Amino acid sequence: MQIAIMGFGTIGSGVAELLLKNQKSIVAKSGQASLEIKHILDIRDFKGHELEKYFTKDFNDILNDPAVSIVVECMGGTEPAYEYVSKSLMAGKSVVSSNKELVAAKGYELLEMAKENNVNFLFEASVGGGIPIIRPISQCLAANEIGEIAGILNGTTNFILTKMIVDGMAFEDALKLAQDNGYAERDPSADILGHDAARKICILASLCFGKHVYPDFVETEGITGITSEDVEYAKNWGGVIKLIGRAQKLDDNSISATVGPCLIQNHSQLASVDDVFNAILVRGDAIGDVVFYGKGAGKLPTASAVVADVIDCAKHTAKRKAFGWGPTEENYVIDPVLQSTALYVRAETEDYITAFNEINKTFDSPLILHRDNAEKNEIAFVTPAIREKEARNAIAKLPIDVKAILRVLDY
Amino acid sequence: MQIAIMGFGTIGSGVAELLLKNQKSIVAKSGQASLEIKHILDIRDFKGHELEKYFTKDFNDILNDPAVSIVVECMGGTEPAYEYVSKSLMAGKSVVSSNKELVAAKGYELLEMAKENNVNFLFEASVGGGIPIIRPISQCLAANEIGEIAGILNGTTNFILTKMIVDGMAFEDALKLAQDNGYAERDPSADILGHDAARKICILASLCFGKHVYPDFVETEGITGITSEDVEYAKNWGGVIKLIGRAQKLDDNSISATVGPCLIQNHSQLASVDDVFNAILVRGDAIGDVVFYGKGAGKLPTASAVVADVIDCAKHTAKRKAFGWGPTEENYVIDPVLQSTALYVRAETEDYITAFNEINKTFDSPLILHRDNAEKNEIAFVTPAIREKEARNAIAKLPIDVKAILRVLDY
Repeated sequence: MQIAIMGFGTIGSGVAELLLKNQKSIVAKSGQASLEIKHILDIRDFKGHELEKYFTKDFNDILNDPAVSIVVECMGGTEPAYEYVSKSLMAGKSVVSSNKELVAAKGYELLEMAKENNVNFLFEASVGGGIPIIRPISQCLAANEIGEIAGILNGTTNFILTKMIVDGMAFEDALKLAQDNGYAERDPSADILGHDAARKICILASLCFGKHVYPDFVETEGITGITSEDVEYAKNWGGVIKLIGRAQKLDDNSISATVGPCLIQNHSQLASVDDVFNAILVRGDAIGDVVFYGKGAGKLPTASAVVADVIDCAKHTAKRKAFGWGPTEENYVIDPVLQSTALYVRAETEDYITAFNEINKTFDSPLILHRDNAEKNEIAFVTPAIREKEARNAIAKLPIDVKAILRVLDY
Repeated sequence: MQIAIMGFGTIGSGVAELLLKNQKSIVAKSGQASLEIKHILDIRDFKGHELEKYFTKDFNDILNDPAVSIVVECMGGTEPAYEYVSKSLMAGKSVVSSNKELVAAKGYELLEMAKENNVNFLFEASVGGGIPIIRPISQCLAANEIGEIAGILNGTTNFILTKMIVDGMAFEDALKLAQDNGYAERDPSADILGHDAARKICILASLCFGKHVYPDFVETEGITGITSEDVEYAKNWGGVIKLIGRAQKLDDNSISATVGPCLIQNHSQLASVDDVFNAILVRGDAIGDVVFYGKGAGKLPTASAVVADVIDCAKHTAKRKAFGWGPTEENYVIDPVLQSTALYVRAETEDYITAFNEINKTFDSPLILHRDNAEKNEIAFVTPAIREKEARNAIAKLPIDVKAILRVLDY
C-alpha cells in the first residue's frame, strides 16, 4: 500500500522518519504486505535529501496516482490544505491529518466527503499531539454519555504559566524563554491568545457531543493578562492558574465551550501537568473522570499519532470506520455566562474596608485572598458558585476597579 | 444483534444497566439495528428482578442459541469461565471479558481460538477498570516501539497506601478502613499480596511486547511489609511509596516483569494518584511517556469498558479485529535483579556510625535518609542505581539487619 505525505515540516518529516524507523512492526500491524512512501509534496527544495526522489511540488502527482491509497496532510492552515484534502477524499483516497485548524474549520464537511466516498478521514494528531484521545473517546468511552471535556491543550502557554508559577517569572520573561527554547513561535499570538486551544476544544466538543463546533462559537481568552499577582493569589488559595479549554453538555442538549485561564485546585490531576505537557479530562456518566496525559506537541509524538491513523486506514480498506459527527445547529453553543461558576477577582479599591464589607454583603461566604507585600489598595476574592452573569453584574456594582476575573474550576 | 451476559455480580449487572440506560446512543454507535440482552447466566435466583425472564442457570441455553452473537463474561476465576468462553468462541460467538485472572492465565489460547473462528475476544475491562488502555496501546500507540509500561493497577492497595501516606495510618488500620468502605474483600490477600496487580501486568506486558506473560513469571511482592517508618522516610526523600506493576523490554528482546512497592518521586505523574484511582504509564520510542488515569474498578466504570468492547464486536462482525499476541518463549522473562536500579533500604544496626561509614564506603554517593523520632539503631538509605544483584550482595555484607528493601523508580 502506498502513501503520500503533504508538507515536509516538523510533523511531515517525523512521519517519514517513523515509518522508516519502525517499518517492520508498523507493516505487521497494518495487515498490508507493505506500507511505502510514494510522494512527498512540499514547495521547498530538498536537493540531496535521502528521500529526494519522492519529492514533488505538484499536488496532481498525488491526486492522479491511483497507487496512492492514503494521503497524510501535515501542511497546516486551511488553504490549500482544504482543497487538497477534499480532492483526495473525492478521489477515493483516505486522508490522515494533523491539522487542527483545518479540522476545526472544515471537519464536518470533510467527514461527510469521506463518508460519501467510503474512505476514512482521521485526525488523532490534531489534538494533544501524540496523546491518544480521539480514538479513546470515539471507541473506548462509547458506552458513556459524556458530560464534559476539559484540558490543558496548548504546551506553549502551559510552559509559560509553569515558569510563572514555579520560578516566579513575569509573563514577558517566560514568553521570551519559551521562544528561546523553540516552544513559542516568533509570532506567538495563536498560542498566547488561546486560538490554538480553541481549535482543539472545537474538535473535542464536536466529537464528544455530536455536532460541529466552530472556533467562532468558543469564548476565547488567552494568558496575556495573567500577572504574577494572580499566580500568587492562586497559590495562597491552594491552586494554580492553567489555560483550560472546556466544553460541557447542558440539560437542554446545548453546550458551552470556552478557552481561558482558570484557577484549579492543587489536588486536581490537571494541576500537576507542567511545562509543555498536555492533559485532557473526560467526564462520562459511567466512567467518571478519566485523564489522558503526555506530550502535546513535538515531532515524533505527533508523528506517532499520525502513523497510528495511517495503520488504521490501512486496516480499514474494505470497510470504512464509522466515525464522525453531524452539522452544527442554531443556538447550539450558549453564552457561558448563563452557567454557574465561582469567580476569582483581583481589583484595586480606594477604600479596602468598604470594599471588603461590600463584597461580604454581596456574596454568600466569599473567600477573601491574601498575599505578601500586596499594595494597600489591592483586594482579591473568590465568589461562591452562582450564575456567572449575576456574579459579573454584582461585581460591576462593587466599589472596586476590577483588574482580573478568572473562572474557578472544581476538578 | 443479541447478547448474553455470564455472571450477574457487580460488573455483569452494571453491563445490563448501562446497555439499558444509554441504549439509544450505544445502538447508534454499534452500527446494528439493535443490541438486545437475550440471556443472563447466573447460578443464583433472581425472582422478581426486572430482568427475570432473561435468567438461566444452564450455559447451553447460550451456547446453543444461534441468535446470540456476543457473549459477555463477568464471572471471574478461571473455571468454569475458561470452559464457557472457549466453547463460545468455538461456536463462532465473539466474547468480551472483564476477567483478568482468565486473560492472564489463558489469554494466548483464547486469542488463538478467536482467530481460528474469525471472531473477536476483547478484554478492555480486565485492566484499569474503565480506563481506556488495551485499545490505546494496540491502536493509538501502534507506531511506537514500547519500551516500558508501569502503573498503579490495584485500587485497594492504593487506597491503603494513600491512608498510610496522607493520614499516617498503620497498615492494619488502613486495611480495616478499606474493608469497611467495601474497597477490600474480607479475604484481601489477592489485593494486598500483589496477585491482582500481577495478573494485570501480565496482560499489559503480553500486549505491549507481543508474547504471553504468565503470572508465575512475575516477581510479585505485596504491601503487607510496608510500615509507617518506610512511608516517613519516603516522604523525607521527596516521594511516596506506591504498589507498581512494571514491565520493561530489554536489549535482547527479553523482558522483566515485577509487582512491588516502590519509591517514586513527588513530581511523577504516578505520585499524585490517590485513593482507589489507577494510572498507567506507557513509554514509547516516539510518544515518550503517556499516562492514562481514572477509576480502576467499580460497577459502572468497568461496565463502561465492557460495553465499549461489545460495541466494537458489533461493528466488526464482517471482519475480525487484528488483535492479540504470540505464545511465550523459554527464558523470555528474566530475573529482575539482573537489571539496574536504585534501592531504598531500612535496617537496624548495633553501631550507627560504623554502619554509616560502611554504607558510604560500599556505595558511590548513597543518600542517607532521616526521620523524626527514629530509634537510635535505625538507619535508612538509598543506593545509587547499579545492577540490583550486586547491590543486594553488597547490602548483605553491611553490618546491618535489613528490615525493608524497595526499588526506587525514576518516573
